[in-house]
Amino acid sequence: MPEFDLAIRGGTVVTAGDTVQADIGIRDGRIVAVADRVEGAAREIDAGGLLVLPGGIDSHVHIAQPSGPGIVMADDFASATRAAAAGGNTCVMPFALQPRGESLRATVDAYRAKADGQCLIDAAIHLIVSDPTDSVLGQELPALVADGYTSFKVFMTYDDLVLNDRELLEVFAVARREGARVMVHAEGYDTIRFLSEKLERAGETRPYGHALSRPQTVEREAAHRAISHAELIDVPIVIVHVSGNEAMEQIAWARARGLKIHAETCPQYLTLTAEDMKGIGDPDDMAGAKYVCSPPPRDAASQAAVWSGIQRGVFDVVSSDHCPFRYDDPQGKLNPRARTSFRWIPNGIPGIETRLPVLFSEGVSKGRISLNTFVSLTATNHAKLYGLYPRKGSIAPGFDADLALWDPNRRETIRQEILHHGSDYTPWEGFAVTGWPVMTISRGEIVAEEGRILGEPGRGRIVDRTVNPTERRAD
Amino acid sequence: MPEFDLAIRGGTVVTAGDTVQADIGIRDGRIVAVADRVEGAAREIDAGGLLVLPGGIDSHVHIAQPSGPGIVMADDFASATRAAAAGGNTCVMPFALQPRGESLRATVDAYRAKADGQCLIDAAIHLIVSDPTDSVLGQELPALVADGYTSFKVFMTYDDLVLNDRELLEVFAVARREGARVMVHAEGYDTIRFLSEKLERAGETRPYGHALSRPQTVEREAAHRAISHAELIDVPIVIVHVSGNEAMEQIAWARARGLKIHAETCPQYLTLTAEDMKGIGDPDDMAGAKYVCSPPPRDAASQAAVWSGIQRGVFDVVSSDHCPFRYDDPQGKLNPRARTSFRWIPNGIPGIETRLPVLFSEGVSKGRISLNTFVSLTATNHAKLYGLYPRKGSIAPGFDADLALWDPNRRETIRQEILHHGSDYTPWEGFAVTGWPVMTISRGEIVAEEGRILGEPGRGRIVDRTVNPTERRAD
Amino acid sequence: MPEFDLAIRGGTVVTAGDTVQADIGIRDGRIVAVADRVEGAAREIDAGGLLVLPGGIDSHVHIAQPSGPGIVMADDFASATRAAAAGGNTCVMPFALQPRGESLRATVDAYRAKADGQCLIDAAIHLIVSDPTDSVLGQELPALVADGYTSFKVFMTYDDLVLNDRELLEVFAVARREGARVMVHAEGYDTIRFLSEKLERAGETRPYGHALSRPQTVEREAAHRAISHAELIDVPIVIVHVSGNEAMEQIAWARARGLKIHAETCPQYLTLTAEDMKGIGDPDDMAGAKYVCSPPPRDAASQAAVWSGIQRGVFDVVSSDHCPFRYDDPQGKLNPRARTSFRWIPNGIPGIETRLPVLFSEGVSKGRISLNTFVSLTATNHAKLYGLYPRKGSIAPGFDADLALWDPNRRETIRQEILHHGSDYTPWEGFAVTGWPVMTISRGEIVAEEGRILGEPGRGRIVDRTVNPTERRAD
Amino acid sequence: MPEFDLAIRGGTVVTAGDTVQADIGIRDGRIVAVADRVEGAAREIDAGGLLVLPGGIDSHVHIAQPSGPGIVMADDFASATRAAAAGGNTCVMPFALQPRGESLRATVDAYRAKADGQCLIDAAIHLIVSDPTDSVLGQELPALVADGYTSFKVFMTYDDLVLNDRELLEVFAVARREGARVMVHAEGYDTIRFLSEKLERAGETRPYGHALSRPQTVEREAAHRAISHAELIDVPIVIVHVSGNEAMEQIAWARARGLKIHAETCPQYLTLTAEDMKGIGDPDDMAGAKYVCSPPPRDAASQAAVWSGIQRGVFDVVSSDHCPFRYDDPQGKLNPRARTSFRWIPNGIPGIETRLPVLFSEGVSKGRISLNTFVSLTATNHAKLYGLYPRKGSIAPGFDADLALWDPNRRETIRQEILHHGSDYTPWEGFAVTGWPVMTISRGEIVAEEGRILGEPGRGRIVDRTVNPTERRAD
Repeated sequence: MPEFDLAIRGGTVVTAGDTVQADIGIRDGRIVAVADRVEGAAREIDAGGLLVLPGGIDSHVHIAQPSGPGIVMADDFASATRAAAAGGNTCVMPFALQPRGESLRATVDAYRAKADGQCLIDAAIHLIVSDPTDSVLGQELPALVADGYTSFKVFMTYDDLVLNDRELLEVFAVARREGARVMVHAEGYDTIRFLSEKLERAGETRPYGHALSRPQTVEREAAHRAISHAELIDVPIVIVHVSGNEAMEQIAWARARGLKIHAETCPQYLTLTAEDMKGIGDPDDMAGAKYVCSPPPRDAASQAAVWSGIQRGVFDVVSSDHCPFRYDDPQGKLNPRARTSFRWIPNGIPGIETRLPVLFSEGVSKGRISLNTFVSLTATNHAKLYGLYPRKGSIAPGFDADLALWDPNRRETIRQEILHHGSDYTPWEGFAVTGWPVMTISRGEIVAEEGRILGEPGRGRIVDRTVNPTERRAD
Repeated sequence: MPEFDLAIRGGTVVTAGDTVQADIGIRDGRIVAVADRVEGAAREIDAGGLLVLPGGIDSHVHIAQPSGPGIVMADDFASATRAAAAGGNTCVMPFALQPRGESLRATVDAYRAKADGQCLIDAAIHLIVSDPTDSVLGQELPALVADGYTSFKVFMTYDDLVLNDRELLEVFAVARREGARVMVHAEGYDTIRFLSEKLERAGETRPYGHALSRPQTVEREAAHRAISHAELIDVPIVIVHVSGNEAMEQIAWARARGLKIHAETCPQYLTLTAEDMKGIGDPDDMAGAKYVCSPPPRDAASQAAVWSGIQRGVFDVVSSDHCPFRYDDPQGKLNPRARTSFRWIPNGIPGIETRLPVLFSEGVSKGRISLNTFVSLTATNHAKLYGLYPRKGSIAPGFDADLALWDPNRRETIRQEILHHGSDYTPWEGFAVTGWPVMTISRGEIVAEEGRILGEPGRGRIVDRTVNPTERRAD
Repeated sequence: MPEFDLAIRGGTVVTAGDTVQADIGIRDGRIVAVADRVEGAAREIDAGGLLVLPGGIDSHVHIAQPSGPGIVMADDFASATRAAAAGGNTCVMPFALQPRGESLRATVDAYRAKADGQCLIDAAIHLIVSDPTDSVLGQELPALVADGYTSFKVFMTYDDLVLNDRELLEVFAVARREGARVMVHAEGYDTIRFLSEKLERAGETRPYGHALSRPQTVEREAAHRAISHAELIDVPIVIVHVSGNEAMEQIAWARARGLKIHAETCPQYLTLTAEDMKGIGDPDDMAGAKYVCSPPPRDAASQAAVWSGIQRGVFDVVSSDHCPFRYDDPQGKLNPRARTSFRWIPNGIPGIETRLPVLFSEGVSKGRISLNTFVSLTATNHAKLYGLYPRKGSIAPGFDADLALWDPNRRETIRQEILHHGSDYTPWEGFAVTGWPVMTISRGEIVAEEGRILGEPGRGRIVDRTVNPTERRAD
Repeated sequence: MPEFDLAIRGGTVVTAGDTVQADIGIRDGRIVAVADRVEGAAREIDAGGLLVLPGGIDSHVHIAQPSGPGIVMADDFASATRAAAAGGNTCVMPFALQPRGESLRATVDAYRAKADGQCLIDAAIHLIVSDPTDSVLGQELPALVADGYTSFKVFMTYDDLVLNDRELLEVFAVARREGARVMVHAEGYDTIRFLSEKLERAGETRPYGHALSRPQTVEREAAHRAISHAELIDVPIVIVHVSGNEAMEQIAWARARGLKIHAETCPQYLTLTAEDMKGIGDPDDMAGAKYVCSPPPRDAASQAAVWSGIQRGVFDVVSSDHCPFRYDDPQGKLNPRARTSFRWIPNGIPGIETRLPVLFSEGVSKGRISLNTFVSLTATNHAKLYGLYPRKGSIAPGFDADLALWDPNRRETIRQEILHHGSDYTPWEGFAVTGWPVMTISRGEIVAEEGRILGEPGRGRIVDRTVNPTERRAD
C-alpha cells in the first residue's frame, strides 16, 4: 500500500449503497483507499463519532446571473462557493444564461470568465437556452456539449426565457442527438400572465399574490406538456424544483409508462409554505418577499406529498435552486417596483448553505430517509445525472476526495449571522436542526471547518464533462 | 284528450331512460301524448315492429364553412340537412367560423344568411372563435350568447384558428361568465408542425404522413392542457372528437378529480384506422386522402378503448364531425398541392348520413350498448349539453315531434350511391350494417322515408337557445 | 283516448331521463298515458307545483328477519311497508334469510307467509344464502330463480352468515348460470374478529368500538376479493352499502378494467359519521348504539368521497339498508349483553322512511345531483338491477302506477314522532330537510298522504321476477 | 497498512452504489481494504478484465424440505450449496418448515442438524409457520427471533400450509412486535381448489392445467389481501415470487399509499411462460411438468411487465425460489399420481445455479438494468431485507469476503450436464447467456472456479441474525 497525503480515520463512511466503519486514504486529491485502517498518512483527521459523506453536489444554483434591469444577484462565484463549502458541499452547478439574440458560446465564455479565480470548490456549468436559433441548435449546442457543457436548462415561463412548444421540441431533439441532459422549469407562461394580470386588476399586488398567480395546476400542466414532448422525442429530461403533489403525480404516471423522467425537489418545498409569503405581522407588508420563488412553496399537505415522493423514489435529487437576492436592497427584493406588484419581486431565495442541514435534519434525523438515501439525493444522483460520475459523488478509490464530515447529533439553529452567502437574510432564520457538517474537504484539502473558510478563492476548478456515447441517438 | 294531427302507433318508444310499447300523439309539430293507445289522429303511421327514437342530433358538423384558398366544402345547408334527415337526424349543429380580424357578429349574420331557405331540418349554430379580441370577448360574445348562440368552439391547432393558452383562458372565462358551453379541439399546434416538417424533410409526404404527424401524445397533451385551463377557470368544457385511449385517460382522470369535463367521440374512431390512410393498392397512391381527418383514426386497440370508454360513461356524445370534401376534385382532397404533401389535403370526412347507422349497428346490434345509451349518445345528451333540451332530444309531452323510426333488423350496405350528401365518396363504402332509419319526422312532418326526401328546403328552422341562469358565474 | 280511473294533473313529471310538464293517466293500476292534458278521469289529483316521481324502490331492507337469540327486529311487513309508503316508496325488497342447515325453499315459503296479508305496498324478495350445500346450489337456487326469486345476497362476515371464498365462488357460478343477481356484503370476517377481540382485551367495549373494529381497510379488502371472484366467474355483482373512498376506489378500478361491478350506498354514509357512535354527552354511555350498523359510518372526508362517487356514476343505487331495532328495549340495542361489548349490539339502523327525504334534501336541494339522477338512484336503477323493470321504476305507459308526489320546497325536520316505522328512534332525529314526499300512490291507489296512511295492509303484492335469458350463461 | 491473506487485483468492483477500478484486500475472511492498489498479500487473484461483485445471496431456496408422501426434494444442503456456489452465490436462505401440530423449535433444530457438516457456503434459515398456535405465537416465535431466526414465511395456499386471515394477522402482529420479517406466498387457496376441481371435472388434468388453475387474478387477490392485513397491523412484508403485472400493480399501489410492501420476483417470471407447461411435442405428454411451479410463469406481456417493474424499482430482490425435484423419478415430477392430475405434480423448479447468469444476461447484458441494480437485486437488498447487512451483501471494509468474479463477455449455454444441483434437468436447458461467474469466493476462500468445486462440505456456516431494535414495536 503506498503512502497517503491524508487519512480520514475512524469515521462512519456512507455512500449511496453502504454504511461502514472505515478509514479513507487520500493521495493527490483523490481517494485511493477505503480500509479497516489507513496508516502512515502525512496528515490524519480523526473522524471518530462523525459521518463521512460524499461532499454535497448542488446541481441547481444561480450565481452572478443577469436578473433584469436594476436587479443584482446577491452572490458571485466567490461568495456562493464559500457558502456552499460551509454548508457541506464540494461542487456546485450554476447556469450560463444565454440572453436572447446572443451567442451561447460567447455567453459561456463570459460566464466562465466570471468564475475564473473565484471558486473555492469545484463547479460545473449548465447552459440556459433562451434563443434556440438554427445556429444555436445546429452548431453551438453540439460544439458546447463536446466541450463538456453537457446539460442545458429550458424555461416554460418568464418573459425573457420562455420557449414555445416548438422550441422545446427542437432543444429536446438536440439533447437526444448529442446525449445531453435537459432540465425543465415547468410552469405555464400564459397562465401565469393571465392570473397575474387578473390579480393586479383586483388589487392583489402584495407578495402573497405571487403564490396565487402560480397555483399547482400551472406547474402540473407544464410538467405534463414537457413529459409529452420528451415522450415524442424519446429523450430523458429532468423536471426541476417540483413543488407538490400535482406535478409529482404526472412524473410518477410517466414513469409507470416506462418514460425516463427524472425529478428534482428543494428544501423550500419540504419546509416552507405559501403562508410565509403573507409576511404575517410585518408592518411594511413586504417581508413575504423573502420567500418569493418559483414555483412558490405550497402547504403542509404538499410538503407531506413531496416527502412521500422522496420515500417512494419519485425524486432523484434535492437541490437548493439557490437564487439569492438581498432583501433590504433597492437592487434586490425591495427594488422600487416591488411594492407596486409581486410581479417585480425578483424570484428566488438563497439556500446553497442550508440545503444539506435542512434536509439532513428533517429527513435523516427525523427518520424519514436513510443516510444512504440522503447521500443519493444530495450527491451521487447529481453526479450520475449530470456526467460528474465516477469522478464525483461517492467515496471509493478513484473519486475526487470531496468529503463532508457530519456530526449527526449536533444541534444548531440556522441564523443569517452564521451563514456565508451574499444575501442579507435566510428564509430558514431560526430553523432548528439536528446534524451539521463540521468539515468540508475538497480534493483532499479542508475548505471549511466549523464555519470557518480555509481555502483560497480560485482553488476550485471548472469541471468539464463528457457524455456517455450510448446516450447519443440519431433520429 | 284533444285531437292529434299525427299518431305514431304500435312502435317501441325508446328514450335515454326507458323503453316502452306506446303510441305517440302529435299536434302542431309537438308531442302531446305518449300513451297505450292514441286514437282519432288525422293521420296515423304504423310503427309496428319498429323502434321510435328521438331524431338524431348531430352537434358537430361543418357545413359550407370556409376551408382555405381554392378549397370548397362539399355540402351547403341544403345538401347537408337532406343527408342528415336521410340518416335519421332531425337537428344539426354547424359552426359559424370567425375569420381572424373580422367581427363575430358579422360572421354569424353571414352564416345565417347562407342557411336561410336551405334547411330541411332544424339547425342550431355554434360559433368558432379564432380571434378573441377585447371587443369579441367583452361585447360580441356576451351579446351573441344572449341572442341564443350559446356555444363556441376553440382550436388548439390549425394555422388560421389556433388560440394560444392566454386566449384559451380568456375565452373560457367568458364562457363561465355567460354560462356558455365551450368545445375544444385538442391537438397541439407546435408539435404537429414540428412533426409535419420533419416528415416532409424525410420525404414522407403521402396521406399516411397525416397520421404520423399527429400521434396520440399530441392529442393527449392538448387535452391535459385544456383540462388544466378549465380547472383554473372552473368552467365545464367539451373535448370533441376524442380518438383513443390517451386523451380519454386524461378525461377520466379529470372526472375522478371532480372536474366537469365532457367528451365526444365519432364513428371514425370506432371503425376506421390509420391504415386506411395508406390507401393500400391504390395506383395513384392518394386514396388514403379519403380518410384524412383530425385527429386521425388510430388502430384496433384504440377502437376497443373508445368502446370501453363509451360503456363506462366517459363519452357524453357521439357526433359525426362531418367535414365533407369531394375526393376527385381540384377543390377537394385532390387539390393541386395535396400531392406535394399531406399537409395540403383538406382535413375532414363526410359522416352526417352514416353516423347513426354505423353506431347503431356496431353498438346496439352487436350488443355493446343498450338502445337507451344509443339515444343518450346520439340525441338526448347533445340536447342537454347545448341548450336544446327540453325542446329537443327526447320523446315526451312538450318536445318537438322530432322522431326517427328504425328497423332494428334491416340489413344494409353503405354505399355512396344511396347517400344524399354532397361528397363524391363515403369512408364507409361497403360497410355492412344491421339496423336502419326507415323514416325521419321533423316537427311532425315526414322528411325522409326509405331514402326518399320528402320535405322542402327551407322548412327547417334555426333554433336559438338560452343558457340556464345558474350556469352564469361572475369571477 | 280511453277513459282513466285516475289522472295526476299539472305536475312536473320526472324520470331517469326526462323532466317534463305533463299529466298522467292511470287505468287498472297502470299508467296508460303521459300527455299534455289528460281529461275525463274518474278522479283527478292536482299536482300543480309538485314533482311527480316514480315511487321509491328500496332494494335493500331487512324486515322481520331473525336476528339472533333474544333479539327482535323492530319491523314486520305491516309496519315496514307503512313506513316505506309514508317515505315516498312503492316497493321494498327484503331478504328471506336461510338459516344454516335449513332448506332455502322452506325459508322462502315461511318468509312469504310472514308477508301474507301484511304489505301496504308491493315487495319483492331477495334470498340470503348462508349454507350453499350441493342441493342448495344444484336444485334449490335454480328452482327459486325460475320461480321469480332472481337475486341473492351473500355475506363475507357475521358468524352465522359468512361464506368462505370457495362458497362465494360456488354461489357466483350459480348466479352466472341462472342469470341471477348477487349482492355482496363486503367486510372481512377474520379481520373483524381479530380486531374486535383485541379491542375487547384493551377494554374498548363501548359502541364506538364497533367503528374501530371495522376500519375501511376491512371493507376494501373484502370488496377487492369479491371483485376478483366475480372477475374469475365472469358474473356481475352488486357491492352493497359502500361506506367510503376505499372500497369505492376498488369498484372504480374494476370498472375501468371493464368488469361489471355495481355499487350501492346509503344515506348513513352521506350524513352520519363514526363520531355519532361516541354518544357524546350520553350519561349512560350507550346512546352511540343507535348508530351501530355495518359497515359503520366513517367521517366527513368519506362522505365527500361518496358524494363524488355518486356524481361520477360509481353508484347505481342508494338504498336504506333499513335494519331496524328498538333502542330502549332488552330485545333491541340495549339487550343485556350489549353493555358488555359492542359485539352484542345488533347491527343495523332504521332508515326506510327517511332515505328519500334525506337524499333529496342533501342531494337535489343542495345542488349535488339532478332530479333525474335522484330518480335513477332511488327507483329506476333498482328496478333494472333486480328485474322489476319495465314493470316498476319509471313513469311511462305500461308501468305500474307507482308514484310519489314531492313538494320540493317543503321544509321539514325529521323526528321520531312523525315516523311510522317500528323502531323507537331515528338516527336522523332533528335533521332538517328541504323537499318532502306529500303523497304516495301504489298501483293507482293513494297509500300515504301528508303522513297519513290510507291503504289497508295486504293490498301490497309480492312481485315475482324473471331473468333476462341473455343473462344465463353455461360455463 | 497491514498485511493481507488475499488480494483481488485489477478488477472492476461493483456495489449497489458504485462501480470502480480497485483492488480488494482480505484478511481473516473479511474485506479490510478497497484501494487503488493492494500489495503484499499472501495470495493474489488477477481480476483483470473481470467484474468483482458481492457474492449472490439467494434468499428464497428450498433445500431438503419435506414435500408430501412419497416425494423427495432433489437437493440436500451439500448439493444445493455446491450448486449455489458454482452459480456465483455465497449465501443461501432455505426454510425450516413447521409441520402442523409440531413445535417450531424442534423443527428448526432438526433442520439445522440436516445442514450440519453439509454446507459449502454460508446459509441463514427462515422459518415457515404453518401452525400458529398460541405457544408458537407467544413463546416459540419470539424466542427463535431472539436466537437469530428473524424471518418467517407464511402461505395463503397449499393444503398443509395455508393460514386463514386470522392466522395471517396473528403472525403479522408477532412480526411487528419482534421486529421480524414476514414473507408471504400470495395465492388464494379456495380459488385454486375451486378451479382445480373444475378443471379435473372437465378432464383438463395435464401439466398445463396447473397454469389454468392459478390465473393472475388469484395471485392479485391474495396480494391485495396480504397488503391489507399488513396495512392494518402496520408491519412491512415481502410478497415473494411475483409473477406478473396484476400482483405487481397492487404492490405499486400500496407503495404509492406509503405502505412498506417489499417484493420479490424470480428468473422464471422473466424468461419462461405457461406455454412451457404444454410440453409441446412430448410424446409422453408430461414434459410440461418440468415447469410446474407456483405461481406459474405467465406470458410475454407479463415478462415485459415484470421487467418494467424491476426498472421502476417495484422489486427489491430477485431470488430463485429454487424448489428442486427430479423429473424422471417416481419420487419426483413423474410420481405415480402425477399422471392422473396436475395437482399431484410437485410444485417447484430448480434454479439456484442459474438465477444469476440468467438475470445477468437478460438484464445487464441486454441493457435492461445496470450492474449496480444487478448487485442490489441479487445481493445487497437480500442482505438488507433479512438482517445479513452489514455483514454480507456488499464490498467494503468489514464485510465478509464473499465475492463473485464475473466475465461479462463470456458466452455460455446452460445445460444440465454443466450444473451441480441434484435435479436431473434444468428448465433453462439450451438457454444461451452472455456473462458468467468464473470464480466464487466465500469468506476469502475460493469455493468454485470455472465450474469446479473447490471447498469442502461443512466449511459453510449457519448465520444467525439480529433484528434492528427500532423494528420492534409494541402495539
